[in-house]
Parts: sequence; C-alpha cells; structure tokens
Amino acid sequence: MELMLVKHRDAPKLNRPVMIEGLPGVGNVGKLAGEHLVEELKAVHFADIYSKHFPPQVMVDDEGLAQMVSNKLYYHKREKPGKGMPGWGDRDILLLVGDFQGITPDGQYDICYEVMKLASDMGVEKVFTMGGYGLGRMVDEPRVLGAASSIDILEEMKDQDIVFGGGEQPGSGIVGASGLLLGMAPLFSMEGICFMGETSGYFVDPKSSEAVLRVMSSILGLDIDLSALETRAREIEAITAKLQDMDMPDEEQESDDTLRYIG
Amino acid sequence: MELMLVKHRDAPKLNRPVMIEGLPGVGNVGKLAGEHLVEELKAVHFADIYSKHFPPQVMVDDEGLAQMVSNKLYYHKREKPGKGMPGWGDRDILLLVGDFQGITPDGQYDICYEVMKLASDMGVEKVFTMGGYGLGRMVDEPRVLGAASSIDILEEMKDQDIVFGGGEQPGSGIVGASGLLLGMAPLFSMEGICFMGETSGYFVDPKSSEAVLRVMSSILGLDIDLSALETRAREIEAITAKLQDMDMPDEEQESDDTLRYIG
Amino acid sequence: MELMLVKHRDAPKLNRPVMIEGLPGVGNVGKLAGEHLVEELKAVHFADIYSKHFPPQVMVDDEGLAQMVSNKLYYHKREKPGKGMPGWGDRDILLLVGDFQGITPDGQYDICYEVMKLASDMGVEKVFTMGGYGLGRMVDEPRVLGAASSIDILEEMKDQDIVFGGGEQPGSGIVGASGLLLGMAPLFSMEGICFMGETSGYFVDPKSSEAVLRVMSSILGLDIDLSALETRAREIEAITAKLQDMDMPDEEQESDDTLRYIG
Amino acid sequence: MELMLVKHRDAPKLNRPVMIEGLPGVGNVGKLAGEHLVEELKAVHFADIYSKHFPPQVMVDDEGLAQMVSNKLYYHKREKPGKGMPGWGDRDILLLVGDFQGITPDGQYDICYEVMKLASDMGVEKVFTMGGYGLGRMVDEPRVLGAASSIDILEEMKDQDIVFGGGEQPGSGIVGASGLLLGMAPLFSMEGICFMGETSGYFVDPKSSEAVLRVMSSILGLDIDLSALETRAREIEAITAKLQDMDMPDEEQESDDTLRYIG
Repeated sequence: MELMLVKHRDAPKLNRPVMIEGLPGVGNVGKLAGEHLVEELKAVHFADIYSKHFPPQVMVDDEGLAQMVSNKLYYHKREKPGKGMPGWGDRDILLLVGDFQGITPDGQYDICYEVMKLASDMGVEKVFTMGGYGLGRMVDEPRVLGAASSIDILEEMKDQDIVFGGGEQPGSGIVGASGLLLGMAPLFSMEGICFMGETSGYFVDPKSSEAVLRVMSSILGLDIDLSALETRAREIEAITAKLQDMDMPDEEQESDDTLRYIG
Repeated sequence: MELMLVKHRDAPKLNRPVMIEGLPGVGNVGKLAGEHLVEELKAVHFADIYSKHFPPQVMVDDEGLAQMVSNKLYYHKREKPGKGMPGWGDRDILLLVGDFQGITPDGQYDICYEVMKLASDMGVEKVFTMGGYGLGRMVDEPRVLGAASSIDILEEMKDQDIVFGGGEQPGSGIVGASGLLLGMAPLFSMEGICFMGETSGYFVDPKSSEAVLRVMSSILGLDIDLSALETRAREIEAITAKLQDMDMPDEEQESDDTLRYIG
Repeated sequence: MELMLVKHRDAPKLNRPVMIEGLPGVGNVGKLAGEHLVEELKAVHFADIYSKHFPPQVMVDDEGLAQMVSNKLYYHKREKPGKGMPGWGDRDILLLVGDFQGITPDGQYDICYEVMKLASDMGVEKVFTMGGYGLGRMVDEPRVLGAASSIDILEEMKDQDIVFGGGEQPGSGIVGASGLLLGMAPLFSMEGICFMGETSGYFVDPKSSEAVLRVMSSILGLDIDLSALETRAREIEAITAKLQDMDMPDEEQESDDTLRYIG
Repeated sequence: MELMLVKHRDAPKLNRPVMIEGLPGVGNVGKLAGEHLVEELKAVHFADIYSKHFPPQVMVDDEGLAQMVSNKLYYHKREKPGKGMPGWGDRDILLLVGDFQGITPDGQYDICYEVMKLASDMGVEKVFTMGGYGLGRMVDEPRVLGAASSIDILEEMKDQDIVFGGGEQPGSGIVGASGLLLGMAPLFSMEGICFMGETSGYFVDPKSSEAVLRVMSSILGLDIDLSALETRAREIEAITAKLQDMDMPDEEQESDDTLRYIG
C-alpha cells in the first residue's frame, strides 16, 4: 500500500490559503479547536487521507457503519474578507483534522511530508498548527504560546496575544504533526506558527482550545462563536472541581493523584 | 523480498465472487469458521500468500515437512445457485485462511491492500470478514454483531439475524484484517460486512463460529453441515465447566482467574 | 542503503552446489558447525554480505581493526568426488556464516530472500541449514532432527541418521534463517534440509554441532576432522559439571538456575 | 518522505577533504568535540540533513523559532597547510554535527550510507569519527583509543598518541554513526579512524573531548584553542566532586549511585 492514499471528493480552488492543523495531542487542545472550526465555519469535507502508518483498524459508528481510520481535509472559502491582520483576512482556509496521528516516528514524517506536498499543490502559503502545552498543574487562564518557522512571521505576529519563547522549558521540542508541519514549512517555501494553549495535560481542555481559537480568529478575521467550547469547559471544570473536593479530607495526598485523563 | 509473494497453482474464473476472510483473532472465531468452510465446501486451494510481514519461520508437520508461514486462498464454484438472499445465491466464493496475520501495523495494511488488489483482479464484488467480539464474560447464546462498509449493504442485510451497531462499546474499532479488508472495500469499489460472533475471548470458541456461519450460510444459500463445530463446542464447554467447578470452593476468587486461553 | 550489499572478492564457478548455512542460534550449534566446516575444508572466502538489518555497528579486533557487521560466503570445490550418498558426493559447497542474523522479522525475510537469489544465480540446487533444537534439559547423546522442504528429499534422506518429525513439539516452527532459507527453497526450485542437533539450549554446544556435521559429512562424503569440536565439547562439559556440582548442597534449587548461557 | 533530505546552502570545492563526525553518544565526547571544532575553526555551515529516521519533532529556541531536527554539515578550507602529519596538513575539513542520531537500527544505516555518498561526491578521502569509550568508573587522564578501517591507516597512525586495540573489551563493537561511518569507509574507497576518548560514561565529558581533539589536531595540524573545553571540564569536575562528597557519610553506598547523567 502507498504510505498515504488521498481520496478526493472535490478539487477546490482556494485563495492564498492558510492550512490549519487540529489533530489529537496533549489535552486534545488542537483536535477540539480543529473540530470546532470545522463546525462553526461549516467547512466542506473534500478529501480523506488513509495511511499504513495509522492504526490498522476501522472505526464503527452506532449504526454499524465502518470506516477506515483517516485524517480529513476540509476547506472554507471566504464570502468576504474578514477583519483580521493585514494580508490575512482574505485567506481561504484548509483544515486538517482526524482521530489519529501516525503511530511510528517515520510514519509521522511520511504523513506530514505528504500532507505538505498536497498543501503545496493547492497553493497553501501559511501553516497554522494547534496543540496543548502541558504544564503538569491546573491553569486558570491559559496563555497561548507560540513557535514560528521564520523570523519574518515571528516579527509579523509580535503584537498578537501570543507568547513566543515563553515556555517553561525553553529550548525544548514540539513533538508530532504540530511540530513537523511547522518545521517542514520552509522546505515548501511556506511560513508557519504553532499555537500552543497552556493546559494541565490531565484533561481534555476546551478552555485551552478556546484561547487558541481566540488568537487565531483575531489574526484571520474569523467570526467564530466559542460558546460551545465554553459550555464544555464549564462541564470539565465541574468534574475536576468535584474530583478535587473528593480529595479534600486527605490533605497529604497530592492533588495530581486524583486527576484522571478524561477523554 | 516483495512485501507479498503470491504463488498461484491455478487461475480460476469465478462468477461475481464474494471473498470470505477467516484468519486468527479473538477466540479464533474467524479462523475456525474459515477452516470449516474450506472443509465443508471442499474448496480448492489455488494460491499461497507469503509475506515478510508474517513471522520469520517455517511450520514443520508431524512428518518433518516444512512450509513457510502463509495465508492460503481457496475457491468454491457453485454447481447450481443456492437458495440464499436474492442476488447472493449464485456468487462463487473466494476463501482467505491462514495461521497468521501480519505482525506489524503497516504490515497489516500492506497485506490487506495486496489481497484486495488480487481480489479485485479476480472480479470480487463483496467482502465478508469474520471475527470474534470479545465480551470478557461467558456467553450462552452468542449473537452475531455486524459492521458494514456502506449504507446500501447495511440496509440490504437488515432482515438477517445480524445486530448492527449493537456492540457493548459502540463507536469502537475492529482491529486487524477483519477490519481493514472491510474498510478498504470502498477503495476497490466493493462492499462488505464484518460478522462478529460474541465470545468470552478466553477460549477458542467454535460455538461463536457456528453462529457466524449460520448467518452467512443463510445469506449465501450454502448448505453447510455444522455438526463438527457443535461437537468441538461441546468439548470446549466440558473443559470450561470443569475449570469453573474447580473454582467453586473458593467463592471469592474471580472466575476469570480460572479461565485460561485454550488454543 | 540497499537492504543488502554484497561485495564480491571472487566469482567462483561451482559444480551443482549445495549451500550450507551456519549462523548463530540456539546453542550456537549451526554457527559452530559452519565455522568448523570453513576451517576444515579450508573454504575460500569470496563475498561479504552487509545489510541494514544487521546491528548498526562495527566489530573491532584485538589489533584495532574495525569491520562492519557482515555475513560471509565461502566456497569449497571438490578435488575428487567424495564417497557420500549417490548424487551428493561431487557437489561443490557454498558456505554462509557470520556473527549475526537480521534483527527484525522483515529483515530476516529480506536477507534470506536476497541470499537465495544470489545462491540461485550461482546455480545452487540444494540447501542445508543447521541449528540447535533446544530441549531445556541436558542431553547426553544428541540426536539430529530433520525438516525437509519436499517429500522427495525427505524420502531420499530416510536412511540417514536423521529423525524426521521427531521433535518433542511436532507441528512447531523453525525460527530464523535456518527456517526461512529452507522454506524459501521451493520458491527458487531448490530442495533443502534443516539439520537440528538436540541441545539443552543453555550452553554453546559443540557436541551437538559435531552430531550435525557427522550426518552431513556422511551425506556429502566430506572427510572432516571433528576432534577440535570434541575437545571443545569436553571443555564445556567440564564447566557444566562444575556448575552442577556447585548446586549439589541445595537439592531444592532447580538445576536450571545454575545453568548460565556461556557464549 | 525521502529517508534523507539535504538542503544545501553552498557547494564548496574542498581539497582532499577529511570528514570529521561529532554526533551525540557516550559522554557526548564526540558531540562536544565536533561543536568545539566548528566554533574554533569558524567552520562554514553549508548544508542541513533532515531524515525521517530522526525523532519526529522540532526544536524551539528561546526566541520561539522552531527548526526541524537535523544534522548539519560545515566545512573549513585551509588558508595555508598546517603542520600536522605528512600528507594530512593540507586537507580541507568537512564537519558532521547535530543533536541526534537515527533512532532505529536501519535508520542508522540509511543515514550513514547517504552521508558517505554525499561525502564521496565531495571528494572526501578520509573519515575521522569521534566518540566516548565508557569505562563505568571515573578516569583522571583519559587515553584516546583508536579503531581503523584498514591496516594501512592503522600503521600510518602508529606513532600518534592513540591506543589501538587497547580497549578493556577487545573484540567488542562500536555502535552508531561513529562505528558505521568508519565501517562503510572501504565501500567508498576511503579510509578512516575512530577516536574514542576514555570516559566514565556518567557525565558529559569535555576532558575526554579535549583528549580526542589534541590527538586529532596534531594529525591534521590544526591550531585549536582548547581552553573553553578545559573550563567546562573543571566545572563538571567541581559538580562531580560535590556529588561524591555528599556521598561520604554513607560509606556503604556505591559511588555509582550518586553519579547522575548531567546533560
């Protein structure tokens, strides 16, 4: 099998597109944000990506319909330019979402490289990747940390609400698709930013996704309703508060012990 | 070595064939069913599949004859159309059986994809895969759960004794060849169904295979004698009953502890 | 890198050759036998096999000379036909030895397949592989168990001192190069035998190698001096006897505990 | 993705070049030495090597700039011949450094082979690789052990301060790029030496790097200031001395327990 199979349903012509990646990862920050964008923008599903580097299985839905594991590509064409940053408000949008990333290191490289080739063929000029920055402790007001593929785009974004080089472990790495798509951008004459919402890393974190989307909407001039994420964030907070209450009687126990990964 | 080597002994011309997969898996439900079909249909062995994604070994029989690990293809041509569902009773049958599946995730993809190409070249239109659905507890009357590759075939099979979307973990996956061959069907303009017999998952389960074959025979109009599977099922039941009796004195012990994997 | 690189020092023309494999494995029975053959036959080193499926390292000798991990090919041309079995005594010999086998399952397949292609190009008609059959207990008079690639060669060898189908676990497999080279023989229109000397599996076992070579020499009509192996076998026996003596005072301890893998 | 992608910034013409490898490994002896050479020689960065066999991530610096994991190639052209050994003082230098080696065995082979092809295309005649030789105990005056790819270069280097065949485990191997680049040299009609500085293996060891560079500078006639390495070595010694002091009260504890890997 080819390492990556793309099944196109449509061949959209996009205007100076930016590709936005939202795949699973720390706190599922990127995945939640990506799926929220697809929904709010009513983005159009135009291609499925299959790969032998995904888990070898099908997913079965409640009706009994089976589908091979895949990543999916959606697009959003602007009806009129958004208000975002100069030069960004009229960019059409290509969205990459899915339930899995490649399951081996070289599989990650292969898939990201093929996605970038496809993006390049579609005229993509900029790459935005989204993920969570795990702090290992609860965070009330998640900041959005940033990493850039070039000095130029880093400078261009300096006035946005993004903290560049502000991670607690400077000099560290970004693992997986959010890192690789960003890192490969220069090989395809593109530029990119990785937006990382701070998160505990213990829970799925819609509040962190919200923070990421707020920054990104401002850049791209997207009018996105974030209330669904806010509602979900309050639900998660209710659960984690409850878990922490349950921990109260035993003061000595570290709070981390009661935090479970809630998918 | 090519990832897959097919050694043909014969090049049969088949009529609108359905491919049936019966490889090892949970409770060996699919493997037992596949081997039983081969035997009862007196199916003709026409090709051997070797792959570098199988375990690197030969199997030696009691006479000292060694054979590389392989999957095997058999065919069954109808002498006269069976009584099965309209449009299904005259389909010739291609059977895929063997002692192993690919041992790596990408190996699974590679082998399944090559098998589908081969099936496509032979004119296969439908794919049936067979497996066990592990419940983690004993089951007296195993139901047959189903997953379909398309709405059309799902609707077509609705009156059969198959429970679609009835798994205890809806939204879950089918791992391995039974999943992938089904998932790849649309890529080859085929349709398919995965038949999963409920099983504890602790034992080889001929009763579950029997349930799967009963449904499949009814669809395809095959006249299959299931008594050999029934006999073997009774033998396994006798062993498991014995094991459970041995557990009686100590009520506190979980029954799972006494259930061993009997290959 | 190509999966296998062969560096030829010579391109010998061989007469109806038999290829003999002696690579590391259980008790290093095959490796010891292979190296002994190379030495006693004064076989000529004519090719080095490198592969990215070997461990990624060089071996450094006592002088400080480094060499990439490799398998090596030697040949032995008959000056006059040996006395062996009819049709075997005049066969020239190709020897495959080395310190490693492929370290991944698909690497094993790749290397064995390439070796068989090379052997086929050199006109090899028969394949003998050598290994140990681990019993998990000490063995005084190791028998030589056999597995054959075809009924024909199995029948032909029936009067030799080989026990076909006599393993303690009939229906089991032969893992690694000794198995795969044998299993692949029919794909290259060759026939083969795997000779497995019984061995405890705990120690390097020159006595088991001796048993294998005795049978093989008789078939091929080779006049091999086995005294070096006998001497080494006595040394190993002295060590194991000592280890077992040390175990005596504590009768309850299982003897397996004192048996270490002595490379 | 190709297994290795080389992005050239420049295409230097070099005179009879020697390639020097300094990648991470035991005590980071090679990496420290390589980076020191780059700095002291003010070597010119002319190519980046990306590979799907590196970890799938980007490294982010303190400013928030992200770069794909890579190895880097630098060159140093001689203004005038150095004083080194006859025939060595005028060789231009190609330097291979980076933060990672390939993360799988076959990835190691692939990357090293491609690097050697590239080196061969650039006219490289000699290969020097640098690493640490782990002793598992503290070492005051690290010797430089050597391994050679041929008798010729081994003889040529005999008067240098290199101990050939002097490892504590003669007959052992050199794992990774330092080994493979050396081992592959003959396949590309090159010769090479691996220089291994003795080191405990517990700490990053600039003193060992210094020893290696001293020998290499003498051969190549390089005028390298080693004071930065000396300073760093004294810092590490201060830390390790402190750790050993902390261990004093409890005499029974093995000193190894207090030695941590300080990256």
